[in-house]
Amino acid sequence: MDHPVVPLGQPRAERVDAARNRRRLLNTAREMIAEVGAEKVTMDGLAERAGLGKGTVFRRFRTRAGVFHALLDEDERAFQEQVLYGPPPLGPGADPAERLIAYGRARIAFLLERHALARAALDRAQPIPAGEAVFSPAHIRVLLRQARPDCPDSDSLALQLAAALEGPILLYLVMPERAEATRHFERLADSWQVLVQGVCRT
Amino acid sequence: MDHPVVPLGQPRAERVDAARNRRRLLNTAREMIAEVGAEKVTMDGLAERAGLGKGTVFRRFRTRAGVFHALLDEDERAFQEQVLYGPPPLGPGADPAERLIAYGRARIAFLLERHALARAALDRAQPIPAGEAVFSPAHIRVLLRQARPDCPDSDSLALQLAAALEGPILLYLVMPERAEATRHFERLADSWQVLVQGVCRT
Repeated sequence: MDHPVVPLGQPRAERVDAARNRRRLLNTAREMIAEVGAEKVTMDGLAERAGLGKGTVFRRFRTRAGVFHALLDEDERAFQEQVLYGPPPLGPGADPAERLIAYGRARIAFLLERHALARAALDRAQPIPAGEAVFSPAHIRVLLRQARPDCPDSDSLALQLAAALEGPILLYLVMPERAEATRHFERLADSWQVLVQGVCRT
Repeated sequence: MDHPVVPLGQPRAERVDAARNRRRLLNTAREMIAEVGAEKVTMDGLAERAGLGKGTVFRRFRTRAGVFHALLDEDERAFQEQVLYGPPPLGPGADPAERLIAYGRARIAFLLERHALARAALDRAQPIPAGEAVFSPAHIRVLLRQARPDCPDSDSLALQLAAALEGPILLYLVMPERAEATRHFERLADSWQVLVQGVCRT
């Protein structure tokens, strides 16, 4: 194939730069969140600390919420990898009902640990990005079919179980911050187990 | 209309007028929704058909979403009255597990019937008004305590069951309209029963 002389080289270098800048901005954002908390991270502060221009930050993430969204996205991929390829009982190899319980416990811990991040990623001008929460229903459905092959409608039941798992924490995102509410939600892991044991009749 | 002479009478007459206008606007909105669908109801059209000024409509409801919100609020009160004082198994008198199943079925039907209304009441500039959805968790908790007095944490479990019940339909509100999704959600009533029977071990 004929390669045109100059123009193609330039974009490739730009793409490499773009990826490097994105990586640097995300790492810097994580450092800042660990030090001062997600609420205090600003686009200006992020640009300054990363030694990049403000325009670069806006070009990569568009909004402040976009930065947190990208961080959550990275974490979500790592979480899903643990579920799909990690050790049992979260990963493959354990009894399906056990895996369902382990999934709920891991998911609740994951969501609670990222609560400030998720709140910061929530763009208040936009509705909750519901369409993105597709992993939990899909994973729960697979395990439910194995745990209860007689289940009349595992699609609907998986949707309801996923809502039971993520709904209370998701709704809490848009409610006022309250310490006791966080403690309350930690108890969700135990009642998730009651729910799964009931449905799987173990 | 007679206007009282003394200044104190004036606000009372205004309040009577305000209540009457509000009633007339809500009734007119219901007629229009039945005829042309919620999406096609505008503040201008509502004012014109009710024979009231545009300013009156805005003063009563502030936004177009506010009109639908007021209608939902009326319906919600009537629904709760059926649950608290109506005939069993939805109302008092039946076995608690049976009441839980009846509650879920009635609630799903209620939410699906009002889906266009709820979508129209959703102010896209605001997050989902999560704090208002407090009746379902409270009612489910009461019945759950009766059905499973041994339940280790009925608060958390009630929160999860309420999310299982309302979450899928609530999330669907912010997703694109799809006919097959509505059909799918009608199956939620059956899987709600599976969920309750599992938890109540009936």
